[in-house]
Amino acid sequence: SNVPLEELRARLAGFALERDWDQYHTPRNLLLALVGEAGELCELFQWRPEAEAGPGLPGFSEKERMAVEEELADVLLYLVRLSDMCGVDLGQAALSKMRKNAAKYPAEKCLGSSAKYTAY
Amino acid sequence: SNVPLEELRARLAGFALERDWDQYHTPRNLLLALVGEAGELCELFQWRPEAEAGPGLPGFSEKERMAVEEELADVLLYLVRLSDMCGVDLGQAALSKMRKNAAKYPAEKCLGSSAKYTAY
Amino acid sequence: SNVPLEELRARLAGFALERDWDQYHTPRNLLLALVGEAGELCELFQWRPEAEAGPGLPGFSEKERMAVEEELADVLLYLVRLSDMCGVDLGQAALSKMRKNAAKYPAEKCLGSSAKYTAY
Amino acid sequence: SNVPLEELRARLAGFALERDWDQYHTPRNLLLALVGEAGELCELFQWRPEAEAGPGLPGFSEKERMAVEEELADVLLYLVRLSDMCGVDLGQAALSKMRKNAAKYPAEKCLGSSAKYTAY
Repeated sequence: SNVPLEELRARLAGFALERDWDQYHTPRNLLLALVGEAGELCELFQWRPEAEAGPGLPGFSEKERMAVEEELADVLLYLVRLSDMCGVDLGQAALSKMRKNAAKYPAEKCLGSSAKYTAY
Repeated sequence: SNVPLEELRARLAGFALERDWDQYHTPRNLLLALVGEAGELCELFQWRPEAEAGPGLPGFSEKERMAVEEELADVLLYLVRLSDMCGVDLGQAALSKMRKNAAKYPAEKCLGSSAKYTAY
Repeated sequence: SNVPLEELRARLAGFALERDWDQYHTPRNLLLALVGEAGELCELFQWRPEAEAGPGLPGFSEKERMAVEEELADVLLYLVRLSDMCGVDLGQAALSKMRKNAAKYPAEKCLGSSAKYTAY
Repeated sequence: SNVPLEELRARLAGFALERDWDQYHTPRNLLLALVGEAGELCELFQWRPEAEAGPGLPGFSEKERMAVEEELADVLLYLVRLSDMCGVDLGQAALSKMRKNAAKYPAEKCLGSSAKYTAY
């Protein structure tokens, strides 16, 4: 689906404003919260064999899949809010980074290789 | 700016396809990569006093600010790609989670409080 | 108190052996578990003002302090087990790293400065 | 080898004292630093197939193995220092947690199963 990052940013800013939560949303606080959510995501994958946790999560039950979805969302929400409180336009930053990656990892040189770009 | 998550997802999918990188982009691999980028973000904040690292990062140099921007982007790119490989619509998941949060944290009850919702 | 790392390592190895858990204790699984526990630790600190979370955790209740203690222990247990499964002597590695740090950060040059060593 | 946690704690405390670094070693700062090091560890494992990264790290070169060793040490050093600044006796906390785990996961019930203890 087609959710713009700007929409998430604006909604989250409004959500915090209505609750007078800006005082808690310092970059370092939000960063710790983001790492906490990333940790919860890790817990959903920690004992899973590669095959069960492959593309599409074939070995996950519907309930486990929903849990993954919710943790992915939590990481995104904190990331969007953190970027906003840092004064960073996350969408532009992502596009800019993708351009850098395209230059660093030319398709013809990197075909089928996971070597770090410094190896080229 | 107004970058849709779907655009990032599609671009990243194309990027991986051109390089034959789908084989490396298993959910667990991408999750470890995401945590690695989140860790780099932490390194940019670890010794900073709260005041320097407050909203808008007033104590950060232009170079440090660019580094933050780049790490935020890296986390997002891995998060979008991870969601895609899990078969999760990240934008919809985020909207759905925001609805849940609105129900869990009614504005009138949570005003100015960071207590966990189970406390209400 | 004076707990040797080797004692923790041996006990954890025995604990896993008795439960036939070596099959789950691959380095990548244990690493994800470690990050999960580190994330839980972050959750205990994410909304705390610096003063409350200063040395000795003056603003933490006894219950919160116990939670911190438990998460610190969880990170250590996974770290010891992960090192063992990687074939790394964690105690020797730590002593060796401390010697490197002493050479990288000479006391007279680093006095009162958190600058990265590359700055000297 | 047989390095006591207390020895690491005392050495790290002396190291910080000589450099007047206690001012930077707040629990939240050290926690962000610990997550940063855990992230570097993840980077060493992120693209490795399970077989290469199995027990003993059979697919790692000597240089890669040394890098793992160093990152494991970094996580431990920050964990020991963080515990000290939180006023937690890390060794006792670990022994106490192991006793809890022994009660939560009785060997006969958990044999060969990675299910969470709440499942029993």
